Amino acid sequence: MTSLGDKGSVQTQTKVLSQDSWTQVSCPCCVSKQVEPLVLIQLSDSVQPVTKRWLISLIETSKRHGGAALLAHPGEDECGDVVVVSAPRCTFLKATEDLGLCKKYHNEDMVAFSYHDRDNFSNVDDMQEFLTLAERQYIVKNELDSLQAQKKQRIPGIPEAPGVLEAWENICQKLVRAGVIKDIFPLHDQQRLNDLGRRWYSKKQIWGQPLDAIQSYFGSTVAFYFSFLDFYTWALVPPAFLGLVLTFLLPGGGGVVKEQAGEGAMEEDDDGPSVSGHMVQAVFSMLWSTLFIELWKRRSSSLSHRWGTLNLAERFAGPRPGFHGTLGLNPETGRLEPLFPEWQRQLRVGLVSLPLVGLLMGLVVLGMTCFYHGEALVQGFHQDSGSLFSGVLLYMPSMAHIVYTNMLGNVYHAVAMQLTEWENHREESSFQNHHTTKVLLFTFFNNFAVLFHIAFYKQDLPLLRKRLASMLIGNQLVNQCTEVVVPFIVDRFLSAPHKKEQEDDLEMDKLRAQRSLPPYPGLFAEYIELLLQFGYLSLFSCVYPLTAVLLLLNNITEIRGDAYKICKLFRKPFSAPVSNMGVWQTAFEVLGFVSVMSNCWLLLLSPRVQEFCLEGGISGKNIILVAILVEHVLILVKMVLAFMIPDEPDWVRIKREQIEFNSMQALGQQKL
Amino acid sequence: MTSLGDKGSVQTQTKVLSQDSWTQVSCPCCVSKQVEPLVLIQLSDSVQPVTKRWLISLIETSKRHGGAALLAHPGEDECGDVVVVSAPRCTFLKATEDLGLCKKYHNEDMVAFSYHDRDNFSNVDDMQEFLTLAERQYIVKNELDSLQAQKKQRIPGIPEAPGVLEAWENICQKLVRAGVIKDIFPLHDQQRLNDLGRRWYSKKQIWGQPLDAIQSYFGSTVAFYFSFLDFYTWALVPPAFLGLVLTFLLPGGGGVVKEQAGEGAMEEDDDGPSVSGHMVQAVFSMLWSTLFIELWKRRSSSLSHRWGTLNLAERFAGPRPGFHGTLGLNPETGRLEPLFPEWQRQLRVGLVSLPLVGLLMGLVVLGMTCFYHGEALVQGFHQDSGSLFSGVLLYMPSMAHIVYTNMLGNVYHAVAMQLTEWENHREESSFQNHHTTKVLLFTFFNNFAVLFHIAFYKQDLPLLRKRLASMLIGNQLVNQCTEVVVPFIVDRFLSAPHKKEQEDDLEMDKLRAQRSLPPYPGLFAEYIELLLQFGYLSLFSCVYPLTAVLLLLNNITEIRGDAYKICKLFRKPFSAPVSNMGVWQTAFEVLGFVSVMSNCWLLLLSPRVQEFCLEGGISGKNIILVAILVEHVLILVKMVLAFMIPDEPDWVRIKREQIEFNSMQALGQQKL
Repeated sequence: MTSLGDKGSVQTQTKVLSQDSWTQVSCPCCVSKQVEPLVLIQLSDSVQPVTKRWLISLIETSKRHGGAALLAHPGEDECGDVVVVSAPRCTFLKATEDLGLCKKYHNEDMVAFSYHDRDNFSNVDDMQEFLTLAERQYIVKNELDSLQAQKKQRIPGIPEAPGVLEAWENICQKLVRAGVIKDIFPLHDQQRLNDLGRRWYSKKQIWGQPLDAIQSYFGSTVAFYFSFLDFYTWALVPPAFLGLVLTFLLPGGGGVVKEQAGEGAMEEDDDGPSVSGHMVQAVFSMLWSTLFIELWKRRSSSLSHRWGTLNLAERFAGPRPGFHGTLGLNPETGRLEPLFPEWQRQLRVGLVSLPLVGLLMGLVVLGMTCFYHGEALVQGFHQDSGSLFSGVLLYMPSMAHIVYTNMLGNVYHAVAMQLTEWENHREESSFQNHHTTKVLLFTFFNNFAVLFHIAFYKQDLPLLRKRLASMLIGNQLVNQCTEVVVPFIVDRFLSAPHKKEQEDDLEMDKLRAQRSLPPYPGLFAEYIELLLQFGYLSLFSCVYPLTAVLLLLNNITEIRGDAYKICKLFRKPFSAPVSNMGVWQTAFEVLGFVSVMSNCWLLLLSPRVQEFCLEGGISGKNIILVAILVEHVLILVKMVLAFMIPDEPDWVRIKREQIEFNSMQALGQQKL
Repeated sequence: MTSLGDKGSVQTQTKVLSQDSWTQVSCPCCVSKQVEPLVLIQLSDSVQPVTKRWLISLIETSKRHGGAALLAHPGEDECGDVVVVSAPRCTFLKATEDLGLCKKYHNEDMVAFSYHDRDNFSNVDDMQEFLTLAERQYIVKNELDSLQAQKKQRIPGIPEAPGVLEAWENICQKLVRAGVIKDIFPLHDQQRLNDLGRRWYSKKQIWGQPLDAIQSYFGSTVAFYFSFLDFYTWALVPPAFLGLVLTFLLPGGGGVVKEQAGEGAMEEDDDGPSVSGHMVQAVFSMLWSTLFIELWKRRSSSLSHRWGTLNLAERFAGPRPGFHGTLGLNPETGRLEPLFPEWQRQLRVGLVSLPLVGLLMGLVVLGMTCFYHGEALVQGFHQDSGSLFSGVLLYMPSMAHIVYTNMLGNVYHAVAMQLTEWENHREESSFQNHHTTKVLLFTFFNNFAVLFHIAFYKQDLPLLRKRLASMLIGNQLVNQCTEVVVPFIVDRFLSAPHKKEQEDDLEMDKLRAQRSLPPYPGLFAEYIELLLQFGYLSLFSCVYPLTAVLLLLNNITEIRGDAYKICKLFRKPFSAPVSNMGVWQTAFEVLGFVSVMSNCWLLLLSPRVQEFCLEGGISGKNIILVAILVEHVLILVKMVLAFMIPDEPDWVRIKREQIEFNSMQALGQQKL
């Protein structure tokens, strides 16, 4: 489904702003005829010209003197409320080395970029070829973020109290807090965006996604999501096929079909797939989930090599803006920066975050228990009295539960953010991973609590099947609506006049207009949707074999919907270079193991198995023991399989080891 | 228990052989007044002087001309059957860099040694200070092992057929096959050995082991074993204490005491520890095993840093002598050497070795089943007939089983070695790990099959307790006998006259006499003993709480016994620098997880729990479900705990990241 390669449409948008208003570059090699506007800083309306001038001069000052070594453009005039930022070549190149990005060497290998060795890299003279748009914009943001006050000083044009910068204070964060900066966002390049859209979600494009072009325009974070979605959709083909075979070709699959076709109420007797079909489905889905995630790891590492993010040096870069600690020399790099001991972070995670998250999960369970309890109570009361009052009362438990769940959700999200901030992670990726893990656990728990309750506590397979089917179909309808239909209507009918207006605007207004779009909400919602899907499929699919078919259909439209959304409906997001999906990959992997447990359990519950035991005269105790044995053996098989399949293709491993060998050699030579 | 630091006794044994018979060094920096005999090559009696001269010249030739760049000494005369080998300073230093050993920098940091930067390292002029004896001897062996024929040639003095060396053939292996070389072994340094012995196993030394001195004399492989033994023995103190408390202080522990004191036959009713004691013991032993292995990992990595083996470069060194493949350029290092694709090795491991090992394990189970079956059959027959013939027949099944088990063991060992050879591992450590894993699985299975059979199939706790106690006490008696008493007797009474004789011998004869000692059998037997102990303790200890006490007593003598054995009773072994215990660490970790399953199961079986269920009216089915839940939760807790405790102390992590950062920097600078 992937068509790679991204050429052309590079020289657009480079002449938009009047050339002479840009601040001057300081070194001769950076002089160029055109400067590309990359990032827009939206200031408050009431900003003083003196503050804006101070900010611009800070942006253009060299790093040695505490600036960002970037290029700034004041918009239409000195008093406007925007600053457009770009960067000179030297800043780009040095930042590329600091990020640890790999770039094409003259011999076509991907090699970690070295500023000293820059002349041996391809396209090093043309920043628009050398770095992708997403990388250029991320570098500019990164440089802005790392602006620090060299000494205690006042910000001109701001009253005393909020206007004093302490030494080593982060300037951008301060300006945001002081209300000077309202927004910093990367600018869309309309022509490239239109090109990308044509190749991505037009009617002609059904099978492939232009992954390289996505990576180039939106960065590797976004590109990894779409690559995974692509890979996952293809991977759904075998289970979908199996599901179709089990449902329509094998005897005993009628119940599911009838139910899906909505021909009547669910029969009381269980007529799902036969025992053998059940088992085939369960064992298949367990092995499939392992193979899927292992093969994705290989795909992921080869994509990472292709995109030059195989050995990022985030650990050795400066800390993330929110990080705080006592100022000291970093023992690894020898740079002056805030330090915070690792064991203290571990303790905070282990002794505070973990129990608190556990407690909140416990509250979810408590809520659900109270709900079921209350429901039973109210129903009993209604049957006894049968009055109007008791009829109204029937709705109380579920309403209370909904309110409770929503409140809990809000509390949890706030707590998760606070906790992760307080854990004080040095690297952005570590912060993201910890935050994502927390929210993900909760969301997942919230979504599956009902199904788990039905499967493990009520042990009611027909109800589980019914619920699963309705959740699947319901979720998909809602998703398709919110993700495809609504955006389409908004874009075509509501924002169309707005668009036309723009055609006659000044260049500057066009850029500024991008702020009217809402900021991109991030990939969390997208990933969690896939994870929930994967959960329905791997945890419970053996009771409803058509799951994979429904998901496959859903994902084919999902790809286009998501693409349309990110291109048209939101502001462009910043995107850090990453080497994999981070914690999401682990989440899918863990789910694979949980699925073994749930599948074994569902098999045990299945009426056919229980009939079989009754006929064979096997006691209920012994069949449980057999199920435990089978579960443990299957987990062992999964682990052996995961261990046997290397996480990266041989050629990536060799490339990686080459880099390691070279740097070991270099270390030996250098001290000569 | 560790007293570190190893100074003095360095200048011994350096004058033993006549100085002028050594081959000459080729570079001026290597000239030294004394040459230390390190390794002895024992030739066959019938070796031709011309062959010996050829070998000596090969040893002394520079590497550029296909030699080993070592120093050779012909023994008493040109016709003798030994060659003594040493190495000049340059060879040592270059090999140190190739191995990736870390050495003390002038600022006291441990830094990966670089030949170009040699003058900044401490003690670089005195090889006896700079490298440990074990490292020097390993380097000499390594250089000898890597001798390859530069072109097709004949070995002088050997008849046509076996005497032709193909191009790139390994010379030492060829000479061993041709019967020219009988043995290559490192030489003991008697004075240092006596010093070490005094600090290690004399009467004064009860609590500590001179780990640094062990590492220096015997190398890190041996030192890691003794460090682990030390750590493990200390770690036994808490479970031993708990075991004593549970047995003697809590009510209901009488049965174990009586049984241990041998006051009578095992009672029919189970009167082991009470339910609460049982549970405390089980949960404690599960958490203890995780803490133990996680803390050992930290200890291990700090030892590895201390001994300079933290970033060994085995991957980038030449392949092990037994490795074969098509000659080509190594894609990582660019050197010409045999190549063998990784995926092919993986396939061999996965599709051939794994099923074969599984098959042989299946045969063990089959044997056991047949044995139990046969026993029941014969006993039935004997009860029916009661004749003399049937009485003799009673012994048949166990005899047949013993013969079968022994044969199977022999077949398995041969198959394991053949398979591992055939898997064609490039690195020695990888070869060792795969071989050890295979043998270890089998040995473990063989030892525990009976206990598992009793615990899981017969479900007979009293029998399990009896068997466990008798195995523990029996094994310990046998071990103490074979490891301490017999060696002591042999050394004091049998080899004493032999020793006195030596006093008047020539230097050369003393060296040659070391060959009369048997070669050291390796650490496999020692490690498997510890693993089996750990298995008894963690898998079954909740039925017999005194296990830890017995093991603690055993290990305190074990340390001295093992030390005495390796110092006095065997030839000195070669020892490669290693950074951890390799596969043994994994084995202990896996056992920790298996122990959760077995403990949960044993708790389930315990009569108190079953009584409790009966009284509370809980069905057997439900109690099993609770046990499964508890098992899964405990495994989760163990995994979280293992994840939360970092595998290396913060200071080691910082040192490691410093090295990584420096080599990244060096890579960037180098291409300037």
